[in-house]
Amino acid sequence: MQRGWARSAACLRVHGPDQQGIVRACSQLLDKFGCAIMKSEQYTDPRLCHFYQRSLFHPSNHSYTDDRVMFQSELKSEIIDELRTFQKQFGLDMVKVNFRDKPKKMAIFVSKYDHCLWEILLRHEARELDCDISVVISNHPDLGEIAKSFKIPFRFIPINPENKKEQEKIELDILKNEFQVDVIVLARYMQVLSNDFLNAYDRDQIINIHHSFLPAFMGAKPYNRAYQRGVKLVGATSHYVTEHLDEGPIIDQDVIRVSHRDEASDLVRKGRIIERNVLLNAVEAHLADRIITHNNKCVVFSD
Amino acid sequence: MQRGWARSAACLRVHGPDQQGIVRACSQLLDKFGCAIMKSEQYTDPRLCHFYQRSLFHPSNHSYTDDRVMFQSELKSEIIDELRTFQKQFGLDMVKVNFRDKPKKMAIFVSKYDHCLWEILLRHEARELDCDISVVISNHPDLGEIAKSFKIPFRFIPINPENKKEQEKIELDILKNEFQVDVIVLARYMQVLSNDFLNAYDRDQIINIHHSFLPAFMGAKPYNRAYQRGVKLVGATSHYVTEHLDEGPIIDQDVIRVSHRDEASDLVRKGRIIERNVLLNAVEAHLADRIITHNNKCVVFSD
Amino acid sequence: MQRGWARSAACLRVHGPDQQGIVRACSQLLDKFGCAIMKSEQYTDPRLCHFYQRSLFHPSNHSYTDDRVMFQSELKSEIIDELRTFQKQFGLDMVKVNFRDKPKKMAIFVSKYDHCLWEILLRHEARELDCDISVVISNHPDLGEIAKSFKIPFRFIPINPENKKEQEKIELDILKNEFQVDVIVLARYMQVLSNDFLNAYDRDQIINIHHSFLPAFMGAKPYNRAYQRGVKLVGATSHYVTEHLDEGPIIDQDVIRVSHRDEASDLVRKGRIIERNVLLNAVEAHLADRIITHNNKCVVFSD
Amino acid sequence: MQRGWARSAACLRVHGPDQQGIVRACSQLLDKFGCAIMKSEQYTDPRLCHFYQRSLFHPSNHSYTDDRVMFQSELKSEIIDELRTFQKQFGLDMVKVNFRDKPKKMAIFVSKYDHCLWEILLRHEARELDCDISVVISNHPDLGEIAKSFKIPFRFIPINPENKKEQEKIELDILKNEFQVDVIVLARYMQVLSNDFLNAYDRDQIINIHHSFLPAFMGAKPYNRAYQRGVKLVGATSHYVTEHLDEGPIIDQDVIRVSHRDEASDLVRKGRIIERNVLLNAVEAHLADRIITHNNKCVVFSD
Repeated sequence: MQRGWARSAACLRVHGPDQQGIVRACSQLLDKFGCAIMKSEQYTDPRLCHFYQRSLFHPSNHSYTDDRVMFQSELKSEIIDELRTFQKQFGLDMVKVNFRDKPKKMAIFVSKYDHCLWEILLRHEARELDCDISVVISNHPDLGEIAKSFKIPFRFIPINPENKKEQEKIELDILKNEFQVDVIVLARYMQVLSNDFLNAYDRDQIINIHHSFLPAFMGAKPYNRAYQRGVKLVGATSHYVTEHLDEGPIIDQDVIRVSHRDEASDLVRKGRIIERNVLLNAVEAHLADRIITHNNKCVVFSD
Repeated sequence: MQRGWARSAACLRVHGPDQQGIVRACSQLLDKFGCAIMKSEQYTDPRLCHFYQRSLFHPSNHSYTDDRVMFQSELKSEIIDELRTFQKQFGLDMVKVNFRDKPKKMAIFVSKYDHCLWEILLRHEARELDCDISVVISNHPDLGEIAKSFKIPFRFIPINPENKKEQEKIELDILKNEFQVDVIVLARYMQVLSNDFLNAYDRDQIINIHHSFLPAFMGAKPYNRAYQRGVKLVGATSHYVTEHLDEGPIIDQDVIRVSHRDEASDLVRKGRIIERNVLLNAVEAHLADRIITHNNKCVVFSD
Repeated sequence: MQRGWARSAACLRVHGPDQQGIVRACSQLLDKFGCAIMKSEQYTDPRLCHFYQRSLFHPSNHSYTDDRVMFQSELKSEIIDELRTFQKQFGLDMVKVNFRDKPKKMAIFVSKYDHCLWEILLRHEARELDCDISVVISNHPDLGEIAKSFKIPFRFIPINPENKKEQEKIELDILKNEFQVDVIVLARYMQVLSNDFLNAYDRDQIINIHHSFLPAFMGAKPYNRAYQRGVKLVGATSHYVTEHLDEGPIIDQDVIRVSHRDEASDLVRKGRIIERNVLLNAVEAHLADRIITHNNKCVVFSD
Repeated sequence: MQRGWARSAACLRVHGPDQQGIVRACSQLLDKFGCAIMKSEQYTDPRLCHFYQRSLFHPSNHSYTDDRVMFQSELKSEIIDELRTFQKQFGLDMVKVNFRDKPKKMAIFVSKYDHCLWEILLRHEARELDCDISVVISNHPDLGEIAKSFKIPFRFIPINPENKKEQEKIELDILKNEFQVDVIVLARYMQVLSNDFLNAYDRDQIINIHHSFLPAFMGAKPYNRAYQRGVKLVGATSHYVTEHLDEGPIIDQDVIRVSHRDEASDLVRKGRIIERNVLLNAVEAHLADRIITHNNKCVVFSD
């Protein structure tokens, strides 16, 4: 979770081939604009010689609006300009700043299971998630009432092999044009997104929860297969969605103990407890700009 | 672990197709011989309609020798006879009693990694394992000194594709004839046992530790593959060895958290902490007769 | 959680000074009435020489109504009569049978925190809890809307030092006369119940969740004190309520990792994740008759 | 654990009242000397407005000796000088650099329990701990053989109320004069150190393992008291030793699940599994200079 003070700070993420001087140049840059760094983590992968950094900062004489630090728009432009120069100078893969002057816009995709949807909505209401929830989209009508009880638009868009292409176009229209959605959370959505759909978003904008400890039990019916195999723990994995099913970069994982007395339906029930936590850990980390994806892996900075 | 009092009790394990009256008949049988039941767990799988039970008991007027309850040999024979009748009457798959008048004899197979070997030897010395450790066998000479420092015979039996058949014969001669070993623990032994070897033992007499959360990363180099995949937890799995590599019935599993900062060698290091615990949980459960294998799964009764 | 088949079985709990023959007599008794034992755990504490048992059983030719096994009322009376005799014969402290022909009636007490209330209501709706939720009682009006959205009566009963005595009388009238409540769950209820109130119920009918790893941080503001102490884990404890504040028998406990970056408010937020799980584990175990209290401790049989 | 590459890097720890420019000044300083920062974490406590930082760095053209980076002694002096100026300029409480050109010297204090001693010695032998183990000191002779088998000097120094003062003087002579010990690990040492003894070391040089989840069960016999209370988890806590018994800053904690079947002796046995891990986590973090103590709390930077 983003702590109160952290929520109010801008976030800078940087990664690229390591070089001496990046840390210095970066801190000088922020210092020059009178920005104070509240929290920073930096790490060089010794095998890849690759540099990763995340820093939270705010202007030294900052004012708050709605719990958010307001950077003057001129200051923002100047910082962005200098960061561009900084990126070129060091040949970095990514230099991304989020001034957090407005919350991210989230869409939630669901089918019939409601536990992950409830978890997102309740933690959002408890002000644990720094985002606006724009819309809930589902291929089944069942969970519409829940969305509505939180006053969130619900769109029922049934999918079958025949209509998939055009229905996804409708979804993208809702996401892109109607709501300008920044992040999509698949909260036990039981449809595979097509590559056309995926290509409308970056590879770190769609988060899925898979109900197994990946890479064990990729694909369908993981709890049944876990039951058949007689495992002693069942797991859940949150990951970014890529064109390779269940093979995207892993954000978080957890497990829960089961026993020989548990039937497949008990694994389903027990699994729900960790699915929602693992998904929410991922969502929260994403919203707080705590993740850098690189080489099909996630660097997840500490909360 | 087997508690002090439990160590001193006989153990009865029963499984087979469920029928009314099994529990009653079984408790009457023990009662008739003046045996007191100290602990009992019974469970019917509702899907398979299959019955599983484990009971600890001792004669009501029992004397101890070396911390063990001594059943008179006549009493033992009579109990065994009646249990045979009981088994026939109810058509049970297994009725197995262990009077625990002598410890099981264990052989440990190792290669070069020493952490699981140390763990077994130290917990044995701490009197946590109710067994005699007869011999340590290895395809490398490296760990001989450790075995010797605990005064346990060590046999160096190098294996290569050419000599495997005959070397395994030598191993079986040591296990069967020289030491009458009851249970074999593969404590990070890096050779695959042949079917000929396996057939010399039952399918619940050889315990292995695999350094992944099975069925993820079956086979070789699981930590490297876990590193490549970018998992956020690494696991360990103890299981009985069958002819299908890494597919035998799972006894215990556990995981430990890793991060993007961990290289493959760090996964190896962190994994050691759970490998030894998961292996020892399995060994201890086996020694305490807490496991029933059925349908390639383990029923593991509570400690 | 109570599995489907288990929910449909009667439950017998027994405890008292150990004696030979209890297990036999008990299984004979059930067998005589044609009852099949589906699951049973029995355990003798070797230090106290005290016997504990829980057995699930159903009539051999049973019919279901609403997912419940129906025992004929005559059969029930006969079983109860014989169990009374059995209790006397062996001088047992408790012999308690629950035929599960109707769900327990639960009241939930809350103040302003809603996460435990949500958890109970959602898991109840997911059919994970075998009970009727009769009423939600609160000393604040805030959570009334939540209760109502689940169509559960909500009673706002403000408490202050002056009116406590009479307000508790009103509460007891609601609980006892209006709803015949069997179990009370204090889901982060911030008032201490008086001894008069407690005496209206048994010592294993009121369940509380305390937001610390008891006995650490008994009493008020445990998260603040945990923050002050600089602990690396925060805990939650569910227990039965007795006249000694936070000293009743512990049903379940769990912990979650925190760091130096977490402020007191972060401990509150992270703690919510385990509070609800620990409370629900306790509620579920209670509803499934899996608990025996003895000597201010809980024997919690396996699920 | 210190990773290979990290072991070979110098470590800088800084803390003090927060001010703008610290990060910049610090990175400029290292950059000026041609040092590359491999890993850095920085954090400002928003409530205390207090700044904490840890950075790993090495000279850009560095050579290795024995797996260690060698800083030229002239370079070291210059860095130290500039850091002194930096500390004054920003009014910092602590600016501490460790060039890691030689391992820390550790003394281990034990009594009769051997599991923590074994763990330290085995992980040291597995090259997981970057230190020299100078001496094992004990008030009992029992564990001398273990120390000797690792070729580590063992000193038997019995303590009773009468001789405590003078015996501690002998101990200090061994620690200070004979071995120049930097860190003392109390590996289940059952004596309380006097204030005179403690004053010979800093408040972050002596590490203890307490066999409970502090602050629960401070003082003697925590497992017995945990058993009496009927807890469902037992814990272990590693902390720096201060003049207030069991109240020093906590470095790490963990818990393990226990049940009603566990007697006090079982808690002791199960607790051993976490005691050694929690102690070793603390020792490893200390040796890697990952800890800053402040306000009786530990900031523990990530591994």
